[in-house]
Amino acid sequence: MTQPRLPGRADVEAAAARIGEGVRRTPVLTLDGAELGVGGTVVLKLELTQHSGSFKARGALNSVRSLADGVPSVVAASGGNHGAAVAWAASHAGLVADVFVPATSTQAKLQRIEEYGARLHRVDGDVGAALDEAAAFSAAHGVPVLHPYDTFETVSGAGTLGLELEQQVPELDRVVIACGGGGLYAGVANALAGRVEVQPVEPELCPHLHDAVAAGEPVRRASSGVAADALGPPRIGAFAFATAGVQGAEPLLVGEEAILEARRWLWSRVRVLAEPASCVPLAAVLAGVVAVPSGTTTALVVSGGNNATLP
Amino acid sequence: MTQPRLPGRADVEAAAARIGEGVRRTPVLTLDGAELGVGGTVVLKLELTQHSGSFKARGALNSVRSLADGVPSVVAASGGNHGAAVAWAASHAGLVADVFVPATSTQAKLQRIEEYGARLHRVDGDVGAALDEAAAFSAAHGVPVLHPYDTFETVSGAGTLGLELEQQVPELDRVVIACGGGGLYAGVANALAGRVEVQPVEPELCPHLHDAVAAGEPVRRASSGVAADALGPPRIGAFAFATAGVQGAEPLLVGEEAILEARRWLWSRVRVLAEPASCVPLAAVLAGVVAVPSGTTTALVVSGGNNATLP
Ligand SMILES: Cc1ncc(COP(=O)(O)O)c(C=O)c1O
Ligand SMILES: Cc1ncc(COP(=O)(O)O)c(C=O)c1O
Repeated sequence: MTQPRLPGRADVEAAAARIGEGVRRTPVLTLDGAELGVGGTVVLKLELTQHSGSFKARGALNSVRSLADGVPSVVAASGGNHGAAVAWAASHAGLVADVFVPATSTQAKLQRIEEYGARLHRVDGDVGAALDEAAAFSAAHGVPVLHPYDTFETVSGAGTLGLELEQQVPELDRVVIACGGGGLYAGVANALAGRVEVQPVEPELCPHLHDAVAAGEPVRRASSGVAADALGPPRIGAFAFATAGVQGAEPLLVGEEAILEARRWLWSRVRVLAEPASCVPLAAVLAGVVAVPSGTTTALVVSGGNNATLP
Repeated sequence: MTQPRLPGRADVEAAAARIGEGVRRTPVLTLDGAELGVGGTVVLKLELTQHSGSFKARGALNSVRSLADGVPSVVAASGGNHGAAVAWAASHAGLVADVFVPATSTQAKLQRIEEYGARLHRVDGDVGAALDEAAAFSAAHGVPVLHPYDTFETVSGAGTLGLELEQQVPELDRVVIACGGGGLYAGVANALAGRVEVQPVEPELCPHLHDAVAAGEPVRRASSGVAADALGPPRIGAFAFATAGVQGAEPLLVGEEAILEARRWLWSRVRVLAEPASCVPLAAVLAGVVAVPSGTTTALVVSGGNNATLP
């Protein structure tokens, strides 16, 4: 595998300038750790209130605004949130978007893609199959692919969330992030390198970074479970794998029931209706997988809300 | 009707000091007015993320902390949100709470009251009937009533939301607030008097302040419609009526469909699942009932989220 050039802080700052006010500065909510059974302070970054319903709007807009002039259309594949974000960003830029998504993806995600006016292609199979079909479409029609998690633009766009969080929570010690293909993790970890610790967490049934770190290289494997519509890439991205290597990250895992419990907690205690993938960081705290010691502040990224079912 | 002494800014500041970190500092989200078809900036105050799921936690905690020492229990009546807030505040203070609520109140509200460990009394009839039963219970058992909207403590507690908003949005020109019994309106309007304009809005089917201003005095009338479980008092409170008089407020009205449309908008565009009452301010903006001119900033209080149905 070729080692990608990782974005540095300046690259993420450049992405932030490129995106500008095109994305929302999403709010943070500070919780008393006692509510969660921990000693320190927990901050929720409510990124589900972002355009298109997830942080993916950041990378999508950065990617669209980085295109060469005159490109008339783009193609994307994803579990659904990146597809919705590309559909959103493309519609604002007056571009046509073709979006390939597993037919089994969540209804709320499929609906958003169509609402933003993209051409939705339902693919039999997983996100890997959707990525393959998008690549074939791109080659056949000569339109650029906007990758969901493994390009410099997607990763540095996602990293802008880290810069924002640092401004909003100056006393921040640690950020906990759900890792799928790892674009969000890689973006934020590189943006905050040397300043704030960034902890990736995966579902036990989608342990791509975990397995890659153990194996010494990304491994292709199946994903399943309640968060697989967002955290189920065919394998960990090269950016995330390289970032974990550089930073010596130790990816943590949470079980299915812990994710669902965190989702119920968010709804019943905070009236935030988040999708399962974005409850993974809270699951790690509630299950004691991530410690929040007294006198420290940990931010949990609530990364998306495209799942229209009540817990 | 006796004219109550209205809380001034110093009284609201005293309430804020009394409540302290017992309530959450709820987040704000800034929207580009273009998304809403207006020229100015719109800020959502996401008070549905408050303890107990609504702003009522502020007044309830202020009331509980203002009780004489040694009071073992309290009684409350409401459409449900104040009841849930009192149940929450009482449980934290180690007090027993008896809460009277119309049996027809929203399931999410009744559930919260029981979850916080209060004794729930379901009353046949409206909020007026629940208030009457609570008063009878109070007299029979000698326990204090915490009124949902018409005491100095409830009103000044609610007003703390205004102080917080002013800190969070220094450029604020106007706050739009849903008015039921009017405790929230009165609290915020008095906290921000002479600084920021505060605009009350009611559903057409619960026009208590509107009718009182027209008649020159509070009038008892029925409430109905999608927001009556929160905005359906028997009549406008004395604090709100007096405040509207002092400030020369002109209460505005919105229709049922506009409220539901605002609720759908919040969910589909911002992934905020709010209860109908708390969508009244946004309904006023989307329907053009409240103008948001270019160069101005208007905050909309999203006051509660205790309604577990998707729009
Ligand atoms: C809501 C949500 N959270 C987290 C992630 C993980 O992002 P990444 O693939 O960049 O690791 C995704 C990916 O789709 C997502 O949709
Ligand atoms: C969610 C919500 N918004 C607004 C209001 C109006 O508050 P007030 O009765 O103080 O006018 C209520 C009252 O219960 C409420 O529950």
